[in-house]
Amino acid sequence: MVLERLKQMAMHVTGNTPPPHPLDPLSESEIEHAVSVVRKEYPELFFNAVTLWEPRKAEMLAWVADADHTVRPHRVADVVCVGKGSTVYDGLVDLGEEKIVKWEKMEGVQPLITMEDLQFVETIVRKDPKCIEQCGLIGIPAEDMHKVYCDPWTIGYDERFGSGVRLQQALMYYRPHEDDSQYSYPLDFCPIFNADTHEIIHIDVPSIRRPINKAPPNNYHAAAIEAEGGFRTDLKPINISQPEGVSFKVDGRTISWVNWKVHVGFNYKEGIVLSNITFNDKGTERPVFWRLSLAEMVVPYGNPDHPHQRKHAFDLGEYGGGYMTNSLSLGCDCKGAIHYMDAAFVNRAGSPTTIKNAICIHEEDNGILFKHTDFRDDSVTVTRARKLIISHIFTAANYEYCVYWIFHLDGTVQLEIKLTGILNTYAMLPNEDTHGWGTEVYPGVNAHNHQHLFCMRIDPNIDGPSNTIYQVDAMQGAGEVGSAENKHGNAFYAKKTRLETAGGSMCDYDGNTSRTWDMSNENKINPYSKKPATYKLVSREVPPLLPKEGGLVWKRAGFARHAVHVTPYDDDQIHPAGRHVPQTSGEPSAGLPAWIAANPSASIANKDVVLWHTFGLTHFPAPEDFPIMPAEPMTVLLRPRNFFLKNPALDIAPSYSSAPSGKGTYSAKDGLSKLITPGCSNC
Amino acid sequence: MVLERLKQMAMHVTGNTPPPHPLDPLSESEIEHAVSVVRKEYPELFFNAVTLWEPRKAEMLAWVADADHTVRPHRVADVVCVGKGSTVYDGLVDLGEEKIVKWEKMEGVQPLITMEDLQFVETIVRKDPKCIEQCGLIGIPAEDMHKVYCDPWTIGYDERFGSGVRLQQALMYYRPHEDDSQYSYPLDFCPIFNADTHEIIHIDVPSIRRPINKAPPNNYHAAAIEAEGGFRTDLKPINISQPEGVSFKVDGRTISWVNWKVHVGFNYKEGIVLSNITFNDKGTERPVFWRLSLAEMVVPYGNPDHPHQRKHAFDLGEYGGGYMTNSLSLGCDCKGAIHYMDAAFVNRAGSPTTIKNAICIHEEDNGILFKHTDFRDDSVTVTRARKLIISHIFTAANYEYCVYWIFHLDGTVQLEIKLTGILNTYAMLPNEDTHGWGTEVYPGVNAHNHQHLFCMRIDPNIDGPSNTIYQVDAMQGAGEVGSAENKHGNAFYAKKTRLETAGGSMCDYDGNTSRTWDMSNENKINPYSKKPATYKLVSREVPPLLPKEGGLVWKRAGFARHAVHVTPYDDDQIHPAGRHVPQTSGEPSAGLPAWIAANPSASIANKDVVLWHTFGLTHFPAPEDFPIMPAEPMTVLLRPRNFFLKNPALDIAPSYSSAPSGKGTYSAKDGLSKLITPGCSNC
Ligand SMILES: [Co+2]
Ligand SMILES: [Co+2]
Repeated sequence: MVLERLKQMAMHVTGNTPPPHPLDPLSESEIEHAVSVVRKEYPELFFNAVTLWEPRKAEMLAWVADADHTVRPHRVADVVCVGKGSTVYDGLVDLGEEKIVKWEKMEGVQPLITMEDLQFVETIVRKDPKCIEQCGLIGIPAEDMHKVYCDPWTIGYDERFGSGVRLQQALMYYRPHEDDSQYSYPLDFCPIFNADTHEIIHIDVPSIRRPINKAPPNNYHAAAIEAEGGFRTDLKPINISQPEGVSFKVDGRTISWVNWKVHVGFNYKEGIVLSNITFNDKGTERPVFWRLSLAEMVVPYGNPDHPHQRKHAFDLGEYGGGYMTNSLSLGCDCKGAIHYMDAAFVNRAGSPTTIKNAICIHEEDNGILFKHTDFRDDSVTVTRARKLIISHIFTAANYEYCVYWIFHLDGTVQLEIKLTGILNTYAMLPNEDTHGWGTEVYPGVNAHNHQHLFCMRIDPNIDGPSNTIYQVDAMQGAGEVGSAENKHGNAFYAKKTRLETAGGSMCDYDGNTSRTWDMSNENKINPYSKKPATYKLVSREVPPLLPKEGGLVWKRAGFARHAVHVTPYDDDQIHPAGRHVPQTSGEPSAGLPAWIAANPSASIANKDVVLWHTFGLTHFPAPEDFPIMPAEPMTVLLRPRNFFLKNPALDIAPSYSSAPSGKGTYSAKDGLSKLITPGCSNC
Repeated sequence: MVLERLKQMAMHVTGNTPPPHPLDPLSESEIEHAVSVVRKEYPELFFNAVTLWEPRKAEMLAWVADADHTVRPHRVADVVCVGKGSTVYDGLVDLGEEKIVKWEKMEGVQPLITMEDLQFVETIVRKDPKCIEQCGLIGIPAEDMHKVYCDPWTIGYDERFGSGVRLQQALMYYRPHEDDSQYSYPLDFCPIFNADTHEIIHIDVPSIRRPINKAPPNNYHAAAIEAEGGFRTDLKPINISQPEGVSFKVDGRTISWVNWKVHVGFNYKEGIVLSNITFNDKGTERPVFWRLSLAEMVVPYGNPDHPHQRKHAFDLGEYGGGYMTNSLSLGCDCKGAIHYMDAAFVNRAGSPTTIKNAICIHEEDNGILFKHTDFRDDSVTVTRARKLIISHIFTAANYEYCVYWIFHLDGTVQLEIKLTGILNTYAMLPNEDTHGWGTEVYPGVNAHNHQHLFCMRIDPNIDGPSNTIYQVDAMQGAGEVGSAENKHGNAFYAKKTRLETAGGSMCDYDGNTSRTWDMSNENKINPYSKKPATYKLVSREVPPLLPKEGGLVWKRAGFARHAVHVTPYDDDQIHPAGRHVPQTSGEPSAGLPAWIAANPSASIANKDVVLWHTFGLTHFPAPEDFPIMPAEPMTVLLRPRNFFLKNPALDIAPSYSSAPSGKGTYSAKDGLSKLITPGCSNC
């Protein structure tokens, strides 16, 4: 690394920028470069994606181990193009060699739809005579078509239209006034849009018609609240400041914080990608995870009436968690001292485009890290925690997903997702029976039951790539009450089941055994506990996929059938619902089920493996979620167990520490905190 | 309330303090008063507890409804005394009438052991010849007995000794140096202490002896870390300040914050008690909960070898979550602007004694409350959340429990418990087989498997006391894939099961259906959703009680057999493992099982009911938990569902809000947050 560092310094002196880290996302100029290479041969195509083709893991591991004596992995662009006639092309462009190294016309698949793709539909719908006719039937005159809006979704899959033509379904809404929330005015019909010809090719019209909602607007923006009496004025500021700056260092896109080091990547589908995560254990940089990302998600809705079965968005694979990412704002999305990173993408025309402040990196106080008081003499040690948060927020039409990757001082990595935004809604008649498939959250507004199921891709690197996954269940000990071995019946233990093959790796969640999964390095035994070095997956919001086996969602979202799947590492297995998700039929199921079916007996024990974890929640809406939903958090923890010799956070200075002898008292009490007796009339 | 207020003002003018709120804990002078009344008749007794006997609920409801025209409930002290011969007396002292209104000698029960009771044991053990002998056998010479320590626990229950004599078991440890953590030096024998005669009456000695551990100390206090190289110096301050003070008001012990109002009580067993919790819904103060507390807990250990079955502490009922409460410290335990409340207790001799700063009340920023961006035009509303936290921390010998009652802007009440402190440990030989009942967390140190099971007592008052509990399960809809009613198999719904009788109210957790429980007022139907006003219990850390049916822990900790029990309201049913927990045999099971068995067919539907919720975690120790454990949080949520007409936090001013029209933009961006590019060499 010394030579590498000298090279960088030299480039700095000469005014050259250093080469990007091999896992850095493509820069704007690299995107331009890739586009120009493609353009030479295919001038007529549009661009769906130009993103980093990550170097093969073997190549990267070698480079990471010894950058000075290893060939630097090439910069390669992964390109998706679309052409007339719903044609799709997958290609790879080697930016160093300036050439296309792979080019393939893809048959029967559709790449994700971009924000640009989405934006076309509303204009077309407003002008389409059949849509105007449908609006008229439910009480919207033709001259009000500018008040008609739509959230265009991929069609998901509709057997009537198949996969050959690129389609969107338009979820229809109305706004009495431009600033009114349209989700209080859902319309009952659903046009189908051909993204190739820019035509409405079909409209799904329900058998029972539902006239446009006459309820007053239900808004949350500032002007609406001001009009209803305004905001409360009794909230005093809570100021968070970091006068000496932050405690992390940034080298390119590698963040060092306390004992952690992590490379922060970003791509259009997964959003944040964390790579080469290590923990400095008293001077030894120990690998922990090779790569972490939110790889896919699906949001199945629970109303069986046609065409609501099509509402099961794969927000990452069908739209892109990166593409939909918000440009963040200081003091709004995050407080304190913030380091932002931008995200560069390609647009349809092939120009680079950048989301400013796409990723937020900051620290937060996190309450008590540990505390103990000796009851004999009140000697006490209390140490405060903080956390490093690497986050982005994406807007998937109505919903917002706030994704927080959190690093803790105690060696824990946490993925927290907050759901906010607005419920997807559908029209209902007064006193219409929801049949339990939804809730009337506002007069005339039916919010359907749904699940939010996320798939976290975990590439463990627990002291190296050879890892083994165990299912761990809390179990009662053998021996009945009264027996010699378990006289009082109090025996219990952690039952570990070693997962041996990909085909046998599927596990469901079991709350009754507090089920967790260990990612262990069996070659690295903790000298104290004699147990393998492990990170434990602790996840408690793990509903099963509720859509039934053999049905549409079950077929398309194979990754969501089980809480855990494990596969042998494969460079090309990143997207558990497949590389191109829109309009997959699920026959056969793409992604994870296909990979496992291809070689079910593949060994996953003491191998380089990937653990795919599906978690989430089942959401039965209520009026409290409307017109905008208070953020609901969900958490997955990756906790070190038998990995360290002791609590790895003992090097964090306490706020206060005293010992029984009275010697060596340490005090770093915060001088800012204040005692108060607010508005006290009687204390 | 006007008259009441005038009275208070008059007293203020005249220099008299106003009368306490009927639910305020007894003050020091009230404790003195109660003691003096008891002393007149029973001068020879010692005091175990003098605490508020809460007014009967019917009386309180009447007073709360109309304080001006209702007789103020009397101040009554609930007294527990102990005398020679392990005698126990329960009494009530009416402080207004200055007399004992109830006095009873209790047979075969033992009240909790106080901190004072605990402190005696170590001194006795160090002088006891048999203990000195046992120490000698494992390598501690008689002259080192000052290095021998013990954590005295109640004996729990041991059939050899029964319930008639007040006993403690001494968990034995050694400290090479006064400041060394004793939990690295557990001793293998266990003396039994008679708290009446102050004698060691028995010593449990294992069949295999384990000499004193020779491993070096494993410490966490400041001097030890300094000696090992010191604390890291790269953490920059994260300052939290509230220059304009806090947003809550304090009137006696009633806290008003945003739309919430709550009375903060405290007693020696439960610690914090929250009463008469209301939410101001656009001018209407709607009752939500009548009383919330952590009512009991049990920590069963999973090693079946004698005498470890006795390790199953009921930390509240056997020691008192209030009695063990820490005196909190500014900037250490909580940051920002803090309002503390003290806690007054009686000591053994009958004098009042106060824990300063027992309860912490403060606000914290809580990230994003809600956010939505319109993808068409990037118009956005983003509003930040904050929370009000009412907390205390108690030290139960080795463990610390940090209890946070959290009120959210969106109407949610959260109970968060953080576990920290030190593992309970036992001696082990080098290479001794733990048989899976524990983990060697440090050489020679066996930390046994255990559960932390908490019982939350929820007295709902959802728009009034007549409430109904439903078990709610996420279920697949009827109809197979391909059927007319469920063609694509995607139907799912919330199945609600109405709990009708106390005897039929026991529910276990089911992670597979994301099971929750609704506390509903069936007489108050949400006009939009047509569903009853509800608070939903959402709890995901709900392991079953692992000790087996019919065994010691199962018998004594009846409350922990199920995730939920529901009982008709009864003023005398506060402690789900019984009023006096130490040395209960569990035959019959005290508390919840007894109450339900007394009238299993008692109706609980549309009645004043109490929901008892047991939650917690199963802890398989690892070296990372030692020598002090990083705080592990657990959360229970009480969420409004169909209670409000809309998101009740729309009155919170956003950080930023813009509308599609561009009109009415609102900006209150935090001017303190700063952009940084820390130590950046390449960005
Ligand atoms: Co939802
Ligand atoms: Co524990």
